[in-house]
Amino acid sequence: MTPSRTSGGKLLAVLDAFTRERSALTLSEIARAVGVPLSTAHRLVGELRRWGGLERDLDGRFRIGLRVWEIGALAPRGLGLREAALPFMEDLYEVTHQNVQLAVREDVEVVFVERFASRSAVNVLTQVGGRFALAPTGVGQVLLAHAPVEVQERVLAAPMRKYTPHTITDPRHLRRLLADIRRTGFAISEQQVTPGGVSVAAPILSGDAVVAALSVVVPGTTAAAVRSVTPSVLAAARGISRVLTQSTGGGWPLEPPTVTPSPDPLPGRTSA
Amino acid sequence: MTPSRTSGGKLLAVLDAFTRERSALTLSEIARAVGVPLSTAHRLVGELRRWGGLERDLDGRFRIGLRVWEIGALAPRGLGLREAALPFMEDLYEVTHQNVQLAVREDVEVVFVERFASRSAVNVLTQVGGRFALAPTGVGQVLLAHAPVEVQERVLAAPMRKYTPHTITDPRHLRRLLADIRRTGFAISEQQVTPGGVSVAAPILSGDAVVAALSVVVPGTTAAAVRSVTPSVLAAARGISRVLTQSTGGGWPLEPPTVTPSPDPLPGRTSA
Repeated sequence: MTPSRTSGGKLLAVLDAFTRERSALTLSEIARAVGVPLSTAHRLVGELRRWGGLERDLDGRFRIGLRVWEIGALAPRGLGLREAALPFMEDLYEVTHQNVQLAVREDVEVVFVERFASRSAVNVLTQVGGRFALAPTGVGQVLLAHAPVEVQERVLAAPMRKYTPHTITDPRHLRRLLADIRRTGFAISEQQVTPGGVSVAAPILSGDAVVAALSVVVPGTTAAAVRSVTPSVLAAARGISRVLTQSTGGGWPLEPPTVTPSPDPLPGRTSA
Repeated sequence: MTPSRTSGGKLLAVLDAFTRERSALTLSEIARAVGVPLSTAHRLVGELRRWGGLERDLDGRFRIGLRVWEIGALAPRGLGLREAALPFMEDLYEVTHQNVQLAVREDVEVVFVERFASRSAVNVLTQVGGRFALAPTGVGQVLLAHAPVEVQERVLAAPMRKYTPHTITDPRHLRRLLADIRRTGFAISEQQVTPGGVSVAAPILSGDAVVAALSVVVPGTTAAAVRSVTPSVLAAARGISRVLTQSTGGGWPLEPPTVTPSPDPLPGRTSA
């Protein structure tokens, strides 16, 4: 625990206690996750409820409130990006009726910002707001190919999980793949995460900087499936890049979030 | 200003300083909005940046960070509702190619949780994450018709803005309309916000409680346009209600957010 945390740090730690797997928490679960006495948790939860950051359901458990969602809607890499991308994603979805995904990089992970999925499409593991490793996903490979060298080297140096027999886990193989992606302008990830699914992904630029990636996941393992959607994915990614560059004046890539290399846990990241 | 605000209250006030109209702020703009000295603003912004709640763009201005968006994605009334609704909204969009909207009530306002809009559809004023008055919008009328009496009376007692010559501003008229909506199970709002747009809206239930509303905004002022989409809107709203009731065990209506009737401003709502 970090006894020096400010009351603000503790408030943020309460929000951090909520995850996709644990999206409804009792007061004692919150107290345990944040590492504070019940009385402190009670005060923090009260403050967040008055603000709208937590809501209570009929069981008495707490959930993230609409106010956090509303403010999060202002994040340029969340809803701002999504609004530029949405018309192109809708067109792409109507053409393919497969999973259409929009993602950004947060350090060494992919965050999925939008996803359209038909009920009959390939079953993919991703969810909006969810995170995933960079190396095995089409969007992640695109984002990694255009990430700072320091980020690439960290991913290449770490062990890579094998999701399917086809998942690339050899750093030399991945390094060659990233060079290919930079050269060709798109990524094809065949059955690296989901058996029977091929992801075709392309970069989205603001000005000269790659800020996001777009993909379609199609069934089948053959080059034919890929040939059929690659032109549409590339055209949609170019369209989104054009709109985004116009709307931001090319002035958006954001600086990467501050990385704290100290061994101290960040405030709010100390939960069990 | 509220000198008694905790450091947590001030952190939340920094987040509150960002709005759709002012989504990028300098440090001094943040200090002014929160009502703290620059040195305090610097510390608060530093804490939020380390957490991922703020990001800095190349101009040095701050914007809401992806971390807020990620946690906001856990709000059941935001993304949870959206995920239940999305397949039905996609179907509705493919049938109509008009604006399809999903909204919830937050006190006396509508918050739009999802919106699909074709580039050729009626131009509507709403945006995802944006708020609007309850009385003139189709979704708002549905939500108001099923709101607690206390909320209805507050809306009926307050002056209502006239967006178009057709906007209802007479409380007796609105009261009759709300009774009609409860009786028929849907709302039709003709040109109340946008000239030339008719909204057809229906309630979404979890168990027995109305928790959201769905609408399609179609061009034209005639009953024909309404007749053509009403069955699809009602069917989609029933489908979403079924999925939502199953996924939540009917256990979700959340308690309404705490209303503080005291004249003290809430922490974080004191900004200029």
